[in-house]
Amino acid sequence: MTHSQRRHNLKSKIGAAGLDAILVTDLINVRYLSGFSGSNGALLVYADEREAVLATDGRYRTQAAQQAPDLEVAIERAVGRYLAGRAGQGGVPKLGFESHVVTVDGFDALAEELDGHHTELVRASGTVEVLREVKDAGELALLRLACEAADAALADLVERGGLRPGRTEREVSRELESLMLDHGADGISFETIVAAGANSAIPHHRPTDAVLASGDFVKIDFGALVAGYHSDMTRTFILDKAAEWQLEIYQLVAAAQRAGREALHPGAELREVDGAARQVIAEAGYGDNFGHGLGHGVGLQIHEAPGIGATSAGTLLAGSVVTVEPGVYLPGRGGVRIEDTLAVPSATSNAVLHDAHDDSSKAEPIPELLTRFPKELAILS
Amino acid sequence: MTHSQRRHNLKSKIGAAGLDAILVTDLINVRYLSGFSGSNGALLVYADEREAVLATDGRYRTQAAQQAPDLEVAIERAVGRYLAGRAGQGGVPKLGFESHVVTVDGFDALAEELDGHHTELVRASGTVEVLREVKDAGELALLRLACEAADAALADLVERGGLRPGRTEREVSRELESLMLDHGADGISFETIVAAGANSAIPHHRPTDAVLASGDFVKIDFGALVAGYHSDMTRTFILDKAAEWQLEIYQLVAAAQRAGREALHPGAELREVDGAARQVIAEAGYGDNFGHGLGHGVGLQIHEAPGIGATSAGTLLAGSVVTVEPGVYLPGRGGVRIEDTLAVPSATSNAVLHDAHDDSSKAEPIPELLTRFPKELAILS
Repeated sequence: MTHSQRRHNLKSKIGAAGLDAILVTDLINVRYLSGFSGSNGALLVYADEREAVLATDGRYRTQAAQQAPDLEVAIERAVGRYLAGRAGQGGVPKLGFESHVVTVDGFDALAEELDGHHTELVRASGTVEVLREVKDAGELALLRLACEAADAALADLVERGGLRPGRTEREVSRELESLMLDHGADGISFETIVAAGANSAIPHHRPTDAVLASGDFVKIDFGALVAGYHSDMTRTFILDKAAEWQLEIYQLVAAAQRAGREALHPGAELREVDGAARQVIAEAGYGDNFGHGLGHGVGLQIHEAPGIGATSAGTLLAGSVVTVEPGVYLPGRGGVRIEDTLAVPSATSNAVLHDAHDDSSKAEPIPELLTRFPKELAILS
Repeated sequence: MTHSQRRHNLKSKIGAAGLDAILVTDLINVRYLSGFSGSNGALLVYADEREAVLATDGRYRTQAAQQAPDLEVAIERAVGRYLAGRAGQGGVPKLGFESHVVTVDGFDALAEELDGHHTELVRASGTVEVLREVKDAGELALLRLACEAADAALADLVERGGLRPGRTEREVSRELESLMLDHGADGISFETIVAAGANSAIPHHRPTDAVLASGDFVKIDFGALVAGYHSDMTRTFILDKAAEWQLEIYQLVAAAQRAGREALHPGAELREVDGAARQVIAEAGYGDNFGHGLGHGVGLQIHEAPGIGATSAGTLLAGSVVTVEPGVYLPGRGGVRIEDTLAVPSATSNAVLHDAHDDSSKAEPIPELLTRFPKELAILS
């Protein structure tokens, strides 16, 4: 989908909401709608046929012209304020703004700029984020590349014996990040988690000089960045030899993760997707050891809509890309998390006709696994 | 200075401003005032003798107790809203909030929480940032460490022949970032700029697969992160052989940078500091080729108060830490920037007694150079 098509979808959406235009100031949303990726920019999108206007400052004159060749680019320092003024001069009656992004001081500046115009500022939080939830073909291609870079880096790390007793968490983290760049990533998606032994029981442990030891769980949560798109994957290994309790919680988390993946139907209630995995863990008596949500959307941000948790409202959209990442954490001992990034299939007539008690269920499209590194328990020695 | 002393300074400041308490929701400000560095947190600081309250969510229970042992830690998901409620229940008449950080939706939530209480929300933007502008001894020690790690990494890179024709910008950038970690950095301060040849004329070029060639300028702008504190340094090298025009603009920028450093007196007008360097470049006829400000504050953020530019209001504070980074950029040919991070001396009786036309001016304390890698033109071969 071109940026122009994305803006077209936004026009329909804001028109239906009774807005005449929207001022987009969130930089990720600006990038999604225009292609412009600079650190200062805003976009004015009209509900009618008028073309959008991109504003940025002089540092980005060349870049904006290259990235958004189909748009008028206004060079201004105070980009939001300038575009609000444009909307006012253009006689826009109702101007939506991103009330979840614009600060109170920022709002004051917009209101001041519109003083004397007949333009009303209307809260329009999350308007673009909802569009971003469903990925188009171009986005999916970049998400696949990001996941492939991460897959290849982890495979390379394991192959070269990078996970072995005696190394520190920090060394492993640095090598893995370096390998992602070798395998085509533009950068890392977020700070890599490498957590060994008892540290693996800390869900978001930051790598330290702790040394990997025989018998340790090693939990690795990491991702690659490609053209702005993120990947997110967690694998947990065991070094040399596995204890009974380790095998037990590994298999439990693997079963829960499978249940979560299998619950990724378009239209499924988000809290039921979470529940599908959580139930497996709770029934085994470890419910209190899984203290976070099951997953989240992934795209131009590492965490984006939808959140998939026990209290999430809403349903899973066809074409969305989400993680499934249950974990069981035993404080002071160790923990396991297994996480994939998956694309929820687009709705098809098959899916619509599907009946849970019907054999034709095999025909229902299944989620596309984007992170493909194996999930079978690997005892590295 | 302890976190408690920083909060004490804030108490005085908000009391003088007529506030009874302030809700701090900017995470960097929360860290500065409490030591807590998690990704969700807020702090309520009272003007009276009541101790501050830190709020964060369950993920950070242990970390918050370790990092802020002297504070009550409330475990809540909606941290700002919860603390606003505390202020309301505590009978706070005027509650400051960070209007440059709180979004319109966030403000609505605070106002809703305070409905029925006799607490007024008062805009208090930049209150903590002003305190942060003057660094205390502990901060200065960490800034020195960050600058030292960057110095050592660049020296190591040059010594091992890392800057030579045939390498790509990206390779150089990766090696330098890796060397910073080797030399004690916790991470990088911002995305490293390595810009060779004509790319050096782009002030904020991102490293590409462009290959370094003989006769190129190589401009490197980078920094290390130590315990949350940033360093910022730019050096420009020439590979193998220098052309006349290159020598000319290098010496010009070096002279401008010296003039900028020498203008760093406590109490100096910020725009005059900028002007001291800019004048040197303008008088040589390159004024249009220096299109950005002279510098900025550095601390828990890579860019913080004060900004030092041609239109900056205010004066340079004793004890602040700032960059001085003039540049001359010739589009399509190449550019030079030379940047240091420096600590402005604390006011002393010498400085106060100083008279510009008096020989005793030599006794005036001079800025401490934190980035010490040599600035003499290096033609690497």
